[in-house]
Amino acid sequence: MVHKIIRVGVVLSGCGVMDGSEIHEAVCTMLALDQAGAEIICMAPNQPQTDVIDHRTNVAAGESRNALVEAARIARGHIRDIAAVRADDLDAVILPGGFGATKNLCTFAADGDRCKVNAAVECLLRDMHRQGKPIGALCIAPVLLARLFGPDYKVELTIGRNPDVAEKLERMGARHKSAAAHEIIVDKKNKIVTCPCYMLAERISEVYQGACRTVEEVLRLTRE
Amino acid sequence: MVHKIIRVGVVLSGCGVMDGSEIHEAVCTMLALDQAGAEIICMAPNQPQTDVIDHRTNVAAGESRNALVEAARIARGHIRDIAAVRADDLDAVILPGGFGATKNLCTFAADGDRCKVNAAVECLLRDMHRQGKPIGALCIAPVLLARLFGPDYKVELTIGRNPDVAEKLERMGARHKSAAAHEIIVDKKNKIVTCPCYMLAERISEVYQGACRTVEEVLRLTRE
Repeated sequence: MVHKIIRVGVVLSGCGVMDGSEIHEAVCTMLALDQAGAEIICMAPNQPQTDVIDHRTNVAAGESRNALVEAARIARGHIRDIAAVRADDLDAVILPGGFGATKNLCTFAADGDRCKVNAAVECLLRDMHRQGKPIGALCIAPVLLARLFGPDYKVELTIGRNPDVAEKLERMGARHKSAAAHEIIVDKKNKIVTCPCYMLAERISEVYQGACRTVEEVLRLTRE
Repeated sequence: MVHKIIRVGVVLSGCGVMDGSEIHEAVCTMLALDQAGAEIICMAPNQPQTDVIDHRTNVAAGESRNALVEAARIARGHIRDIAAVRADDLDAVILPGGFGATKNLCTFAADGDRCKVNAAVECLLRDMHRQGKPIGALCIAPVLLARLFGPDYKVELTIGRNPDVAEKLERMGARHKSAAAHEIIVDKKNKIVTCPCYMLAERISEVYQGACRTVEEVLRLTRE
């Protein structure tokens, strides 16, 4: 009996919580995917990061770095420019969090509920949704899904319990549900799975639990 | 009944396999420690990295980065300058791999078996060993332990199956044992635990398995 290997895109946005992908969320997602036997396809936008933050002091460094080149650190060099990835190449996609999701994948950090989504990211996510393929998002990354699918599909999702961010999600047309760090909210109709992870987690083991649940549900939805 | 929380240092060397800490090994070590209920104390040398490598192309970038500042990305900002950490602060210490271990923690990448170890790293590891506290090392990081404890203690350790590196370890006075990616070699007398991880692993789940076994044995040795 031959089992088809499920191909899951992991959308990265740099390397480090303050200006790129949250590293623990990205690695825990990859670990959970590998443990479940899925194929991992890492990708990121080939563009300068919005900023570079010194993670020891939280002060912006006078530096320029490329989101794809930095994300390649998490991916150990195995990474694709998201502009070259087609929905046909994937069975599902997961977006880890980190401020990079709100700075390099969209402009939420600067523009709030009036944010714009990176064109290549938007194109891929809209095609995935149109083809009925599941999308997972951790931490703050659900803001992208609120922006893209809030107005037309009233997607249901979570970013934990932050009332300010939750209100912005609702203003973009999404329905927000509170959840604990490792809990998932599943929008079955839109095949969207979200989990707060480090929006609330204080320990990496909670993040791993959240990533495992997200991956498990995303993979289950690929079979529906 | 009160259980004492075991404090484990994680010695980082930057952020990324080619010029710093291997990110999956570092994160899997932190995850395994947290799952085991240990306290994690991340640290790195406060010094410029030997080089900065573009992880997409494997080409050296004409850039300068600080090992402590970059390692802070993996530690989410919670990190100490290793020069300020005392053996009394810790019950055990673990060194993940990545080329940073051979470039920023010692000079093995350039000098092979004639390498020198960073002074602050040497001081801490010698004090830990003297106090009978366990030391774990993944991937290529055991070269530091061969350099420091090979001549006097004939430490037994593994870097997998690479005959060239194994020969260099033996020339530094260590005894090398072959092991699979997720297998550990335990030198009970010296309380040293080593595991090949990405010296051989092809999947992150193997690395996690290796990290879990290393952490389990290191924590067990703290109770002896």
